[in-house]
Amino acid sequence: MSERYDIAIVGSGPAGLSAALNAKIRNKSFIIFGNKNLSSKIEKAPGINNYLGFPNISGNDLKIKFQEHIKEMEIEIAEYRIDSIYAMGSHFVLMSNDKSFEATSIILATGIEYTKPLVGELEFLGRGVSYCATCDANFYKKKRVAILGYNKEAERDANYVSEIASEVYYVPMYKEPYNINDSITIIKDKPKKILNESNNRTLVLENNEIEVDGIFIIKDSISPAQLVPGLLIEDDHISVDRYMKTNIKGCFAAGDCVGKPYQYIKAAGEGNIASLSAVKYLDELKKK
Amino acid sequence: MSERYDIAIVGSGPAGLSAALNAKIRNKSFIIFGNKNLSSKIEKAPGINNYLGFPNISGNDLKIKFQEHIKEMEIEIAEYRIDSIYAMGSHFVLMSNDKSFEATSIILATGIEYTKPLVGELEFLGRGVSYCATCDANFYKKKRVAILGYNKEAERDANYVSEIASEVYYVPMYKEPYNINDSITIIKDKPKKILNESNNRTLVLENNEIEVDGIFIIKDSISPAQLVPGLLIEDDHISVDRYMKTNIKGCFAAGDCVGKPYQYIKAAGEGNIASLSAVKYLDELKKK
Ligand SMILES: Cc1cc2nc3c(=O)[nH]c(=O)nc-3n(C[C@H](O)[C@H](O)[C@H](O)COP(=O)(O)OP(=O)(O)OC[C@H]3O[C@@H](n4cnc5c(N)ncnc54)[C@H](O)[C@@H]3O)c2cc1C
Ligand SMILES: Cc1cc2nc3c(=O)[nH]c(=O)nc-3n(C[C@H](O)[C@H](O)[C@H](O)COP(=O)(O)OP(=O)(O)OC[C@H]3O[C@@H](n4cnc5c(N)ncnc54)[C@H](O)[C@@H]3O)c2cc1C
Repeated sequence: MSERYDIAIVGSGPAGLSAALNAKIRNKSFIIFGNKNLSSKIEKAPGINNYLGFPNISGNDLKIKFQEHIKEMEIEIAEYRIDSIYAMGSHFVLMSNDKSFEATSIILATGIEYTKPLVGELEFLGRGVSYCATCDANFYKKKRVAILGYNKEAERDANYVSEIASEVYYVPMYKEPYNINDSITIIKDKPKKILNESNNRTLVLENNEIEVDGIFIIKDSISPAQLVPGLLIEDDHISVDRYMKTNIKGCFAAGDCVGKPYQYIKAAGEGNIASLSAVKYLDELKKK
Repeated sequence: MSERYDIAIVGSGPAGLSAALNAKIRNKSFIIFGNKNLSSKIEKAPGINNYLGFPNISGNDLKIKFQEHIKEMEIEIAEYRIDSIYAMGSHFVLMSNDKSFEATSIILATGIEYTKPLVGELEFLGRGVSYCATCDANFYKKKRVAILGYNKEAERDANYVSEIASEVYYVPMYKEPYNINDSITIIKDKPKKILNESNNRTLVLENNEIEVDGIFIIKDSISPAQLVPGLLIEDDHISVDRYMKTNIKGCFAAGDCVGKPYQYIKAAGEGNIASLSAVKYLDELKKK
């Protein structure tokens, strides 16, 4: 079993990074999950005027400033997408494919997925629809699978599933090039909905219908309710109080995932609060 | 009567400045009160590591970054200390000595005064103890007055009062030089408490007792409850929800004044939220 961290931070946008700075300053052992490119949402902004201290900066330049800051503080981002988190009472177990991590407290800073779920997606989740290839591919040995890939990382999942399933259809939601096994059929089309009838799942696209046994949907982020069973959600966001506490003991959240306005400095400010709340939580645990 | 602003922001620390950026971006008419030096609390920090984007920056350098940002956005700070604010239902009236300002909504970003009130200070406020020289000096024509000055700006008040009162004692709570009228007696001593017996107020110091008719206490900031009558306070901070709304319609608050942790980026993040909430409030008013 791996080391148990004081704090595990899920997400590498401004909320997660700001949380990491404070965990570091407060001398806690921690791990931050995300990607070294930080957040596609940071990069995208053309000109930002409301991050106090940086007048009229591009998203890309702001990203570089953030990267320099964490480098200076010797913070490394662990490039894992966390697929599920289990609250065990005294600690949390975070799963990324077949790897698991343990932490006494967690900070959710996953941002918010602007893509709406497909009709049927949430309804049939766990019944033929899955967000995690490594977790569930084994159910589809020698079966037909469709994979809806929202980003390039989904290609790795598609390749993995293609070694197990008999037929794999890959629907990429991003531009070429695609780097996938020859055995996979690529279908370029716009997904509409998912049907689930007796033994058949159907991925309905604008111009096609794919009949399969299972459908994998690989997105940048997973909805918080899927990620952490039992987490209280209100109006599509993680419910937190002003100290960024969620309904689960030891679980804090910050940034877009806890609500509007969707803004960099709001996310960073909340990451700061969440981190100091986690530090306080850890210090109080020690006293007991 | 002066123009009615959409938003009046009280305070020029990170919370107030961040609010101002967003008011500007959202094209609202606004005024921000404070001082061009921004906030003595920003300056004081020796090395800051947890303002995401600026690794290991001094408080003074961060202040310069903030000043450059507001300059670039053509935001000017109005150098008035607001002494009291009245909620009139449809708008607010903000008083600074004998000047008044009107705004449809307000954002309180006054920071928090770390100096505790003296014993007797709050008890006798309005009964011989006052925070506002220009408001109340006239009650002390040809009388004896003590002035407790927490900052250099209090000297202006002392000089003004000395033209009206018969005797003025000035207790500076900061280092020399003092630039005050010759008629004023300077007493360098540590204030302990205020007594109020029949017609006599006594400022009790460590080594002196000054018997006077009135006592003025001039601080950097006024407690929010004094500033805005009717404002709900909880645990010594302005009570707000996650949208930075206070209990008074149209009145928002952000930064140290709404609670811990006391941190720059938390203050800036909350200023952003408060400002966007004020914008939303204004837009909804227009619809009616
Ligand atoms: C085009 C555009 C322009 C914008 N312009 C502005 C602007 O001018 N001003 C402004 O203030 N805001 C702007 N925003 C909003 C701003 O980008 C967001 O509010 C901010 O990025 C939110 O930060 P966050 O940390 O909450 O989440 P994000 O920045 O979304 O970061 C979340 C990170 O967590 C990762 N992640 C998610 N789930 C997992 C998981 N399970 N495991 C591992 N990692 C995970 C994601 O991949 C991502 O890297 C803009 C957004 C866009 C899209
Ligand atoms: C020595 C020191 C070191 C610190 N180090 C750090 C650090 O490393 N990291 C960190 O994150 N934080 C640090 N802080 C805390 C940080 O300074 C505060 O959290 C932050 O400044 C709060 O911002 P604010 O906008 O709420 O209020 P402030 O910065 O206090 O600004 C409030 C402003 O409003 C003005 N004002 C108040 N009342 C009125 C009125 N009635 N009319 C007009 N103007 C008014 C005040 O004069 C002041 O200029 C430190 C603080 C100190 C003192």
